[in-house]
Amino acid sequence: MTESPFLLLLDLLGTFAFALGGALTAVRSARVDLVGVIALGMITAIGGGIIRDVMLNLSPATFQDWRYLAVAAAGALIAFAFGFHLDRLSTPIDVLDAVGLSFFAVSGAVKAVAFGLGPAQAIILGTITAVGGGTIRDSLLGRVPSVLSDGLYAVPAFIGAAIAVLLPIFGANGPVTAVIGAVVCFSIRMLGLHFGWNAPGPLHWKYGRPTPSKRD
Amino acid sequence: MTESPFLLLLDLLGTFAFALGGALTAVRSARVDLVGVIALGMITAIGGGIIRDVMLNLSPATFQDWRYLAVAAAGALIAFAFGFHLDRLSTPIDVLDAVGLSFFAVSGAVKAVAFGLGPAQAIILGTITAVGGGTIRDSLLGRVPSVLSDGLYAVPAFIGAAIAVLLPIFGANGPVTAVIGAVVCFSIRMLGLHFGWNAPGPLHWKYGRPTPSKRD
Amino acid sequence: MTESPFLLLLDLLGTFAFALGGALTAVRSARVDLVGVIALGMITAIGGGIIRDVMLNLSPATFQDWRYLAVAAAGALIAFAFGFHLDRLSTPIDVLDAVGLSFFAVSGAVKAVAFGLGPAQAIILGTITAVGGGTIRDSLLGRVPSVLSDGLYAVPAFIGAAIAVLLPIFGANGPVTAVIGAVVCFSIRMLGLHFGWNAPGPLHWKYGRPTPSKRD
Repeated sequence: MTESPFLLLLDLLGTFAFALGGALTAVRSARVDLVGVIALGMITAIGGGIIRDVMLNLSPATFQDWRYLAVAAAGALIAFAFGFHLDRLSTPIDVLDAVGLSFFAVSGAVKAVAFGLGPAQAIILGTITAVGGGTIRDSLLGRVPSVLSDGLYAVPAFIGAAIAVLLPIFGANGPVTAVIGAVVCFSIRMLGLHFGWNAPGPLHWKYGRPTPSKRD
Repeated sequence: MTESPFLLLLDLLGTFAFALGGALTAVRSARVDLVGVIALGMITAIGGGIIRDVMLNLSPATFQDWRYLAVAAAGALIAFAFGFHLDRLSTPIDVLDAVGLSFFAVSGAVKAVAFGLGPAQAIILGTITAVGGGTIRDSLLGRVPSVLSDGLYAVPAFIGAAIAVLLPIFGANGPVTAVIGAVVCFSIRMLGLHFGWNAPGPLHWKYGRPTPSKRD
Repeated sequence: MTESPFLLLLDLLGTFAFALGGALTAVRSARVDLVGVIALGMITAIGGGIIRDVMLNLSPATFQDWRYLAVAAAGALIAFAFGFHLDRLSTPIDVLDAVGLSFFAVSGAVKAVAFGLGPAQAIILGTITAVGGGTIRDSLLGRVPSVLSDGLYAVPAFIGAAIAVLLPIFGANGPVTAVIGAVVCFSIRMLGLHFGWNAPGPLHWKYGRPTPSKRD
């Protein structure tokens, strides 16, 4: 792997946050058992990075470097051990998910640029990297994925990826812009959740607002 | 990419038709917002081609060539802008979907042959390329994919791919047979929809006809 | 393909068992037609191996070697032809599924080692190979995949893969340990089904036992 230490750090932090958040989501769903919680936590954590690496025609870092699976498993086990003590998990889940979203949006976009993709493709691949794991998790749980129904899930990832890709073209320092991109993505996501911002639903003035993220 | 201009044209036309049809399907479902409509339109448009390229162990053309994402995004935006003015979208969706199905069945099969797959594998990969994007879209929307419940969805793709793969073996001109394959696929699909043809359901004399394509 | 004859045999036997079991599952679900039964049987049979090969950045053996698709199609057709004569299909489905699970867990893990993955990653990739096809099938049928709700589905695969990966490190004969791993995996799976063993559900003392495998 030609992965830089900086990218690796972003990746592992995002992996840990997504593993915690994904496993807590599974704990709350109460439809899955211990194995399901571990599996969903790990899928949420490694899904986006695997999609990114496969799209770049690389051997997924997840399986080349044991630390990804170790960090993902650790996060899922921690969530299983402590998750069910909490009565209301919405806030921690949302924060952890926003952290993973921010780190993966940036790391996905930066890695795509490093492997020669054009800016537009890199920004979209960064967005896919960020939302991929959670989308697989939601599909397996039989929900409509957040990315489809929760307008401000993909948008912050897209903006964060765009910052990380475009600013360096104008000479800005890579790692600095990556951090800026992640912070902007996280902030927009959290503000959007707090104020209930949403993208327009095409038919909602006709049929009423579609049920948002199916977080039950 | 060693992609021929002819293959590229088929691919881009299929991408545009699938993006329009996929986004219109999302608009009708009324469960997703603007981001969801764009995402589903693009997934429908690029999903099959990505599966094809990954199965051929290539870097997906979708991310190597910006035109794929541009065409997919344009189709999805057009569908979002005009989709909800139409009262009944079934017909345009079905036609656009059949166009994408035909072009991808042929381009998938021809590309598979170009990269050294045997005829049987090329025909099946062409079929997977054709039905792949719509299958991902339907799964994300929580439906049973058309390919599983709507007999004449995969069959025309299979026949079109078979024509494009087999006739050249007997010396027929490649591009000509590709066009013939696409036209035959499109015709069978549209006739099947018009006359309600269906593949036999294994248990339907026992439990009654399974609900077809869940197009609601 | 650098695949050994022994690996190939394991793979083809697992493919056949999964194709039969997957198609019988589809027949029972009564929601899909002939094409759907064939498609689900083949997806169950080839899904796990495709995931394994893509994770190893190889051209999937499924499309390189016509025998995989032939065996998968044959199994699915046999299941369609005879499946609906059986009144109770649970037992054959479970046995066939356990056979496929055992062979793929071992072949996935052994192939991962052969392509240079570390032991931990090889064991997890073996497990993913074993449960992958069935997970895709269940998702397409709109069910919560067994791997998430049926504790002793992934666990035996994990143990079988671990045996096939770890014993050779201590000098044991590869093929012999592979057979032992498959037999152990199969035995644990069948015993677990017989005695209704399950992994602990995180919340089941709170909300009651989550509905297991959604086999209806």
